[in-house]
Amino acid sequence: MELVVQKYGGTSLATAEQIKRVARRIIAKRKSGDQVVVVVSAMGNSTSDLVELARGLSSNPDPREMDLLLSTGEIVSGALTAMALKDLGCDSISLTGAQAGIHTDTTFGRARIAALHPERLQRELNQDRVVVVAGFQGVTDEMEVTTLGRGASDTTAVALAAGLGAIRCEIYTDVGGIYTADPRIVKKAQKLPDISYDEMLELASYGAKMHPRSIELGEMYQIPILVASAFNENPGTLIHGDVDMMELRNKVRGVACDLNVARITVLAVPDQPGIAASLFEPLAQAGISVDVIVQNASQEHLTDLSFTVAQTDLDKALIVVERVAKSIGSPGVVSNDHLGKVSIVGRGIQNAPGYASQMFQTLYAEDINIEMITTSEIRITCIVAESQAHDAVKALHRAFGLEEPS
Amino acid sequence: MELVVQKYGGTSLATAEQIKRVARRIIAKRKSGDQVVVVVSAMGNSTSDLVELARGLSSNPDPREMDLLLSTGEIVSGALTAMALKDLGCDSISLTGAQAGIHTDTTFGRARIAALHPERLQRELNQDRVVVVAGFQGVTDEMEVTTLGRGASDTTAVALAAGLGAIRCEIYTDVGGIYTADPRIVKKAQKLPDISYDEMLELASYGAKMHPRSIELGEMYQIPILVASAFNENPGTLIHGDVDMMELRNKVRGVACDLNVARITVLAVPDQPGIAASLFEPLAQAGISVDVIVQNASQEHLTDLSFTVAQTDLDKALIVVERVAKSIGSPGVVSNDHLGKVSIVGRGIQNAPGYASQMFQTLYAEDINIEMITTSEIRITCIVAESQAHDAVKALHRAFGLEEPS
Repeated sequence: MELVVQKYGGTSLATAEQIKRVARRIIAKRKSGDQVVVVVSAMGNSTSDLVELARGLSSNPDPREMDLLLSTGEIVSGALTAMALKDLGCDSISLTGAQAGIHTDTTFGRARIAALHPERLQRELNQDRVVVVAGFQGVTDEMEVTTLGRGASDTTAVALAAGLGAIRCEIYTDVGGIYTADPRIVKKAQKLPDISYDEMLELASYGAKMHPRSIELGEMYQIPILVASAFNENPGTLIHGDVDMMELRNKVRGVACDLNVARITVLAVPDQPGIAASLFEPLAQAGISVDVIVQNASQEHLTDLSFTVAQTDLDKALIVVERVAKSIGSPGVVSNDHLGKVSIVGRGIQNAPGYASQMFQTLYAEDINIEMITTSEIRITCIVAESQAHDAVKALHRAFGLEEPS
Repeated sequence: MELVVQKYGGTSLATAEQIKRVARRIIAKRKSGDQVVVVVSAMGNSTSDLVELARGLSSNPDPREMDLLLSTGEIVSGALTAMALKDLGCDSISLTGAQAGIHTDTTFGRARIAALHPERLQRELNQDRVVVVAGFQGVTDEMEVTTLGRGASDTTAVALAAGLGAIRCEIYTDVGGIYTADPRIVKKAQKLPDISYDEMLELASYGAKMHPRSIELGEMYQIPILVASAFNENPGTLIHGDVDMMELRNKVRGVACDLNVARITVLAVPDQPGIAASLFEPLAQAGISVDVIVQNASQEHLTDLSFTVAQTDLDKALIVVERVAKSIGSPGVVSNDHLGKVSIVGRGIQNAPGYASQMFQTLYAEDINIEMITTSEIRITCIVAESQAHDAVKALHRAFGLEEPS
């Protein structure tokens, strides 16, 4: 008997009727002979509702209380899913993150899984039960409840698959797979039959709807991850390590887009060692991720230093940056929160120099100005005006021949 | 510095605005110099909403999952209350029942507190924090989440007051005190300035809105319990052990009413030892409380055995009773789920024989038939038709002179 971990997203658990449908799918899987562990997200918009409640009480809600608050959403859908399974005659039990042994560090709001103690979970499996685990949450050694970040039920699922020795992790969503671009932006976007972990990681980090940490874990433990529809039986996308390199050679696999981008520029910074550290160290301590960093050529030992953060982090970041800027003698800080990030991703990129110039040409032909550029081995990213980002995605999707089924 | 435990009910925490109001009240208390532990119920109707969700999935939801589900309501209001306190500048932390060290037995749905391990809670208090505890819930030694029964946040509050050595437990509700009768039934009902534990226990068991276990605990540990309004500063009712007996002599303190009553009659039962045990033992095992028991005079070694259960337990009880009835040779079981319980309560009753006859006369004058009678030292209870119960309360309230302020 083999073990499969299935994860169901909140849009597929929004009502009692939908939870019953999910329960029937789980039972069908169980009847095929596999053991099943199910990870659930919070029902529909319930997490957003809780966030809104909290914001009604405080403009800056305490992170520890926020995590305790938000963790209840997944516990609710877990208990309801287990009830539905039992009602349909399938023995089941739901576990909170703490009960499932998901131990994390103490970074509230974006905790990382530090250890898995799945003894209890394994015991329930051995009793032939479907175990439903509340996603998105864990517990510290001091019994404090933490959450792993928005969308991190994916990470719960892959971590459990790795820790329990599952043969596969199945992520069921309303999207139904990984596409060459967001189908809401590009009508002709194609579903990919499979994709490698590293390509998926770049897509996830740059706009595709999966929690990046889940892909990292999948790669680290070589867990194949199937992303498929929660609403039909259509084939999804398999994220794995065995993608045929011959077939993929010189190929862009997808175009990612992220509109949650803001740029901060610290003007006329002294061009000397230690300056970058003095700026980015306090940002890291404040829990703010810095993405693209560009330093202009030095003029008279002064340089402008630009970097991007999430738009949602901008206000918090500016407080830190303005304090540091003053202390290092910068005359000022400017910011722009109307930017977007557009990326092409594919393993082929690392071997062929032509992709970058084709990308820049394509954007130029559309009259889209490139504000910043950053690359990895398998990705090229341009920062453009937020208002032009979707046009950029469409043009790139066309230019790299992604409209034809692969 | 003395410690006070305050409990706020769900109707006073139904919206963000109300939670802010409660936070301001807590801060006012804190500023008077006392340490404060706050116990909260779930917001407004959120518990009923969760119950409804569960019933949409199963006509008989798994009790263990139900407890896990319902426990989230109090965790939500706890986290929100702590956020509100912090936002108003008052250091605070919320704890789940498990984090607060409330250990229970494993009777899901109506667990009893088995032990209190308040080390963590005490640590937070020592850091000068207002500690907000999710009411109504606890945890077993196996880390299973339990609930203590509907309305049992009162019990959480009194148990914490006892365990932490508080000088007083304050229960803030939408009713604002203990009345001589339910003010929704009797317009001229009077608020009592104080009442003894044992009288309150009878009132609570027979209709007044407090969890009986909380009164038992209050008496056991001699914790004075103030029941007062969450919405204004009017004086409430103090439940304590020092009620002046002279003043109360020969006095009925209140009229209680409970419409959640059903009667089961097992017909023609053999009148021999062991029969009652064979019936009530399996009911107890099924978690069903039996209240009034009446056995008719024996005729030819056969007797009818009647008893009452909560209407909400009737279906479950009948399954058990019908099985047992068959095995002991009873020709049948009949039931009536349209009954109500009306009680007069007061310490004075134990010394004066006139109260019972005055009660029966009053009901007779109103043309109300008495179906069953049961008494304790300080209470006389009549089972009447559900449709006449409110009229009975009104008549008794008048007859025993409870309309004048005490």
